[in-house]
Order: sequence, then structure tokens, then C-alpha cells
Amino acid sequence: MKAALIQQSFTAQKAQNAARSEQNIRKAAQNGARLIVLSELHNRLYFCQSENPAFFDLAETIPGESTEYFGAIAKALGVVLVLSLFEKRAAGLYHNTAAVIEADGSLAGKYRKMHIPDDPCFYEKFYFTIGDLGFKPIDTTLGRLGVLICWDQWYPEAARLMALAGADILIYPTAIGWDPSDTPEEKSRQLEAWRLVQRSHAVANALPVISANRVGLEKGQDGLGAGVDFWGHSFICGAQGEMLAEAGLENDAILYADLDFERTEKTRRIWPFLRDRRVEHYGDLTKRFIDRG
Amino acid sequence: MKAALIQQSFTAQKAQNAARSEQNIRKAAQNGARLIVLSELHNRLYFCQSENPAFFDLAETIPGESTEYFGAIAKALGVVLVLSLFEKRAAGLYHNTAAVIEADGSLAGKYRKMHIPDDPCFYEKFYFTIGDLGFKPIDTTLGRLGVLICWDQWYPEAARLMALAGADILIYPTAIGWDPSDTPEEKSRQLEAWRLVQRSHAVANALPVISANRVGLEKGQDGLGAGVDFWGHSFICGAQGEMLAEAGLENDAILYADLDFERTEKTRRIWPFLRDRRVEHYGDLTKRFIDRG
Repeated sequence: MKAALIQQSFTAQKAQNAARSEQNIRKAAQNGARLIVLSELHNRLYFCQSENPAFFDLAETIPGESTEYFGAIAKALGVVLVLSLFEKRAAGLYHNTAAVIEADGSLAGKYRKMHIPDDPCFYEKFYFTIGDLGFKPIDTTLGRLGVLICWDQWYPEAARLMALAGADILIYPTAIGWDPSDTPEEKSRQLEAWRLVQRSHAVANALPVISANRVGLEKGQDGLGAGVDFWGHSFICGAQGEMLAEAGLENDAILYADLDFERTEKTRRIWPFLRDRRVEHYGDLTKRFIDRG
Repeated sequence: MKAALIQQSFTAQKAQNAARSEQNIRKAAQNGARLIVLSELHNRLYFCQSENPAFFDLAETIPGESTEYFGAIAKALGVVLVLSLFEKRAAGLYHNTAAVIEADGSLAGKYRKMHIPDDPCFYEKFYFTIGDLGFKPIDTTLGRLGVLICWDQWYPEAARLMALAGADILIYPTAIGWDPSDTPEEKSRQLEAWRLVQRSHAVANALPVISANRVGLEKGQDGLGAGVDFWGHSFICGAQGEMLAEAGLENDAILYADLDFERTEKTRRIWPFLRDRRVEHYGDLTKRFIDRG
């Protein structure tokens, strides 16, 4: 099964972004990709650089405008799409949500981002309510997709729960970048940490991983701060964490990899980690911290 | 605080192994190391390549011969030592146990390997009962040591539980190697997977990691099989997973790194993963698998 991810930069024009994404999706499909993953919140500039109540206007329902637009493309091309959308669920209730579109254009399922960050220029806790659908893979004709989103990528718990629920693959639409004022050394450490923690989820669970990041410097839309320099470097790795395809800082990169879900079985036979988990001693993982005394 | 690890090859002569280890410990201490970590089961050849009831004679009590021998060295040099021993607990009850020796020569505590492997040439389930002390860091004058052992390194759960219990550092005495008949590509994937999964524990928990491996080809002591080619490549990494010191395949390598436990606080301020864990959704981590229907 050939999978692809699209690494893209974005502008303030939603229609322009969607058209670029469509162009990239069509190209990926022409090249044989059957599963295509877009980066996080791919309809827009990354609006979470400031807390602005007006930006809630950017949200949409699921199903809604984007699932319809991209659903038609998925159906026309016969591909499964992983979208990342700003979901309006009810008045005052919004989520950061991935929507998986089946190859017939229907909505296969959605995942609401469970771990929500909140750091300078990533004020997501203002916009997004924590997900309440849990860590459940989404079944498609291509397999059971363990879709997670960005900040989730730092949590081995999320990857493990997807694996325990039978995921065939882990997928991370992402929007991560550098603070432009960081030193080159710090930037390098952050990028490498990001790559290796996601590759480690592949290793620990013997699952392939697709991580699709944004790319390019985006100034805050309220003119605050120096912006975020989204660092690209999207990648696809195999069930032992080995790199299969890797981008740099280029715009509109499309990465491809042929994925064989049978490798999970083969890899788990030589490294049967699931067999030896000491589940009776894992109860404290549900604690915030193990306080003393 | 300067830490060191000793990567060593071993022979069938226990006294010779201990003398080499002592020499390496003295050298590390002379070079300023205050914490010194040895590799897994450093008194002996790796006897778990076959299942032989006679090999239980190799076990010792803790405290016992080795804690006395190395305790005297620790006291003389004023260093904290992490030993890895074959523990005899009672008739027919044995563990793979790390013993931490305080700088005054006393036993600071022990950790019994919780995840026990069992693969061709690594028949550990025959020799070692699963640990029953849980994932508890060991307090020393140098800090709270999150000591784990080899196979534990593949389990993000173990690293996380040590971090939640307040560990300042993760330490892995290890005995991992290649099947000599594996292809170069497979060997390379395995080595890289091993490195990145441990570095990812540093990233996910913002803790430094010390991983001390054996090195060199050891034929099975019962003349069975091609042996295990212990792959060395011991390393020390910092709280963002960045490599601080790294060995190759050399015998008797001593690696050093200056560790600053304050970096954990600094790193967790920019990447506050512990803040956002969705503990109320982690209950299924205590399941073997999440079966359907």
C-alpha cells in the first residue's frame, strides 16, 4: 500500500490553500498513493499564535464544508484522506479534529486531539477543548488508522493505546516550528527530539509512522511576536523506526512510502514487546505524579 | 555532576572480569566521575544463551560477594556505582537485579528487572523471575536514580513510571547484540532502533539517559548456536535526547558526561508534557490488549 504525505506552506487565503492541497493530492494519487495525509489545520495560517475570539469564526462543522470539498476529491481519485480541521461542535465548544475520508468520499471517522498544548505562540488551550473520543483507531478500507495530532506525538501513552486498540499505522498531522529567536543548537536539538520521539513510537509498537508537518515562517495574524518558523522535515518511517522518506524545508513536498502492514507481525515476532508488558504494575500511569510522603 | 559508564567485554574468568571492571572504575573516578555505571551481568559471560540448570550456581545474594567487593571500591573512591548482578533470592528463586552502591560503600537499593525477555539466545525467562519491586527510583547522595535493565529499555511505560516517581536520570545496564547471521541492513536497523527508543525516553520525560552495553562476540557456553555479537554503542544523552557521549565497538570504553539535573526543570518549562497528560484516558494501558467485540 503506497502512502503519501503532503508538506505544505500556507497563506491567509483559504481557497488558495485548499486549491494547493487539491493539486498536491491529485499529484500524489497520480503517483499511486492510496492514503494521503495533510498537515495540521491545513486550511489556514496557524491562527493560535494569539488568543483572539474572532478567530472562532474560522471553525466549521464535521461533516461540513471541508469534508464535502475534500470528500469529492477523495471519491474522484479513490483515495483515503486524513484531514486536519478546526471543528465547531456547538456554540463555545471547539476541537482540533482530524477527519478521515474514505475512498468513496464518505466520512470514515474522526479523532479529536487529546493532548492540547499551550505555550508562547501556541495558545491552543484557548481555542480547543480537549478531545473526548479517546484513543481509537479509525477503520478504513486500507486498514485501521491510528490518527493522532501534533502535541500527541510527545506522548508514548497515546501511541501505545492506539497500538493496543489494533492500529496498523500511526499518523500525525502536525504544526511544529522554531521560535525564530532560538539558537541554531537549540533548534537542532528540538528538531531531532521531535523526529526521534515519533520514530520511537514506531519502534515500541512495531508500527509505521507518518508525520506531516507545515513548513515556512508564519507571522502572527495579530502582528504579535516574531512568528513561528514551521520546520517541515515531515517523514515516513517503518516498523523499526527506520526512515523511509524524509523532507527538509521545501514547500509542497510530497513524500511516498510503500507500507507493508505484515511487517508489524514479523517485527513483533523478533521483538515481542507486547508479550512482556507488566500491566499489573502500570496502574500508576493514570496518576498525574507519584507524590512522596 | 560527572557521570561515567563502562563498556566492557567479558571472559569466562569471573575474577578477571571483576579486576578489569575495578581498573575501569578507578580510571573513571580518577577522571572525576562520581556516578559510574557497569553493563548488564558484568561478572560473567552472558550465560542466558542456553537453558542450563547448572548455571544457577553463578547466582549470588544481595548483599553478598559482589556488593562487598565493589562496595569496598566505591568507598575507597567515594563514588556511586550501579552494578548488575544475578541475584539468588531463595532456593529456585532468582532475579536479574541492579544494585546501587552508595559512595560510602553501603547498599543504596536494588531494582529487579521487571520486563524479562525470552528469544533465541536470550533465554532469560528460564533464569530470572520477573521483578516484584516495581518501578521505583533509588535515592542516593547524587540524586534519585531511575535504574532499569536492558529489555526494560523498550518500554516507555517503565521510563514514564520512573519519571512520575521523581527520577533525576534513567540508567540502563544492558546486554544486547546481533545475531551474527543477520544482514548488515537488519543489524543497522536494530542498533538504530535501540538508540532511538532510549533517547526518546529522555525526550518524553526530559531526563538524561545512561545506557551501558556489553561489547564483543560471545559464543554460547554450551557450544550451541553462533553466539551473540554484543553491539556496544553505549551512550549518554541529555534531557532533550541529544547525544553527549557515544561509544562504538571498542572494548573497555569509558564514556563521561557532565550532567546538570536542573536542565530537567528548564526543559519541562518549554515542553511541559507532564502538564497535559490525559490520565483519565490512560486506564487501558493496564490491559494486555483492547480486544474487539
